[in-house]
Amino acid sequence: MIDDLIDRMLGGDKRAAARLITLVENDDERAREIVKKIYRYTGNAHVVGITGPPGSGKSTLLDKLIKVVRKEGSIVGVIAIDPTSPFTGGALLGDRIRMQRHSTDPGVFIRSMATRGSLGGLAKATSDAIKVLDAFGCDVIFVETVGVGQIEVDIVKTADTVVLTTVPGLGDDIQAIKAGLMEIANIFVVNKADKEGADATVFELELMLDLEKEKWKNSWRPRILKTVAMTGRGVEELWSVIKEHREYLLKTGRITEKRKFRAEEEVKTIVSSMIAKRIGKKMQDEELMYLIDKIISRELDPYSAAEVVLEKSLGVKV
Amino acid sequence: MIDDLIDRMLGGDKRAAARLITLVENDDERAREIVKKIYRYTGNAHVVGITGPPGSGKSTLLDKLIKVVRKEGSIVGVIAIDPTSPFTGGALLGDRIRMQRHSTDPGVFIRSMATRGSLGGLAKATSDAIKVLDAFGCDVIFVETVGVGQIEVDIVKTADTVVLTTVPGLGDDIQAIKAGLMEIANIFVVNKADKEGADATVFELELMLDLEKEKWKNSWRPRILKTVAMTGRGVEELWSVIKEHREYLLKTGRITEKRKFRAEEEVKTIVSSMIAKRIGKKMQDEELMYLIDKIISRELDPYSAAEVVLEKSLGVKV
Repeated sequence: MIDDLIDRMLGGDKRAAARLITLVENDDERAREIVKKIYRYTGNAHVVGITGPPGSGKSTLLDKLIKVVRKEGSIVGVIAIDPTSPFTGGALLGDRIRMQRHSTDPGVFIRSMATRGSLGGLAKATSDAIKVLDAFGCDVIFVETVGVGQIEVDIVKTADTVVLTTVPGLGDDIQAIKAGLMEIANIFVVNKADKEGADATVFELELMLDLEKEKWKNSWRPRILKTVAMTGRGVEELWSVIKEHREYLLKTGRITEKRKFRAEEEVKTIVSSMIAKRIGKKMQDEELMYLIDKIISRELDPYSAAEVVLEKSLGVKV
Repeated sequence: MIDDLIDRMLGGDKRAAARLITLVENDDERAREIVKKIYRYTGNAHVVGITGPPGSGKSTLLDKLIKVVRKEGSIVGVIAIDPTSPFTGGALLGDRIRMQRHSTDPGVFIRSMATRGSLGGLAKATSDAIKVLDAFGCDVIFVETVGVGQIEVDIVKTADTVVLTTVPGLGDDIQAIKAGLMEIANIFVVNKADKEGADATVFELELMLDLEKEKWKNSWRPRILKTVAMTGRGVEELWSVIKEHREYLLKTGRITEKRKFRAEEEVKTIVSSMIAKRIGKKMQDEELMYLIDKIISRELDPYSAAEVVLEKSLGVKV
């Protein structure tokens, strides 16, 4: 059944691709089988991470970007990391719904992924989904996250090109978030640039980059662009700067460094998830609960309990 | 030297406590030794997680809360999870600086933790720091995070009481974030309640809770409060609802459930970190790089590489 799905997906069947993504998302064993089989068809797509604080207009920007990219005939994939939860039924957000209209275009594949499940589960599911879209034939894959949390940052920084969106006039918290994402961004977008304070935000970013002057001598100096996603202003320019960055990566060979980094992160994530599974198999729930009870009664500390788990499940002494 | 630090910390020496937190944060081996030694002195503090979207005024609220709690003579600990990065030197934010003035009070211990390091590193450092503050004698420990990312949510949901802050009139993204945090909150705070739309936000939250009516029959129905952190309005009431929730947990025995959950999460995190270390020891960097090169050239897929890593470093076949 999987071989059949893969054949159809490689032949351009969107529904088969969607089905494969569902499988890699929900079933670790299947993910392993699928990735092993499709891996040699991957490596062609350019992965663009788009992140930024909540309310900075990422989805609207992406909606407009898709239009621009499609005009060139490229096949587009979108993976939107969705912070919603089962509590609300994981309803699609307004902006996301707007973007979704591109789904009727056979050259656009959009997929939302929820941040449920365990630590690392999302990162693994995202990189596996990227591989499916890559094998499917996407030329560009956009990965959109709300860039505040560590995992979301970890996901986006494995992209080939990282776009960081911001808006004029945000508070302290946002400043901090921006700072945390500063070092991973290749392109800064000051969105809602028709609002007051846009030039000041650009100036602030320029200043921050100037502090690192030495660094840019031998590498891509992040570009700063102004957009108004709502009207589409600046979006064509953004796309051409993304392509420029792609050229830079290819010409300098940095693309290989980036992809090595991505591969390494991926292997680590898979290793963690395989181990978690193994522990689940080797240790009964009651055994674990027995240890937890001892922790609660202060007869055992968490580190000693972890040592027991490792020895019992993996035969490893630490 | 560690025994000496622990003795001084147990005797109420704040600087010794600070030094111990630095050690558990930076050195895994030391963390293990310290936690094993102090664990039996822990279990008395009530841990309150405070989270919410950027700009919802968490730090200001906390600043005011500390004042209220101190009036009762309780010892207060604060762990603020800081989204800044080494790139900007990890500068303290304006709000955080304001809060910091409590540091001169011997009954208040404030600590910022940066979201650097690997997946899970922050969660481990935070729970170890909580234990130091608990053993030190804190009656209440506030853990403040910017509640958007998965790790931040994972940290905060291990608290005894979870406070979720929001503000009137936020956009789509924020709605989603709120939804993601909905199910873990015990108290909702609509901060900046003097702004337009506060009542509408309260109404919206009430509505959401009403959808889960059945659930609240046998458990704590989340409370909704309005505050104006800037002026201190509603902060005393917030503190009394936090205490009410604590009473509820103690009376019903749910505190044990919560703490079992926390212990389980903790053991899992420690196990992952121990394994990561072991892999680092057993596999040379060159061996890993060799595998990564094979992945880049498409001779090997990431899952097969992970299998090699597991077998070489842990002798585990999957």
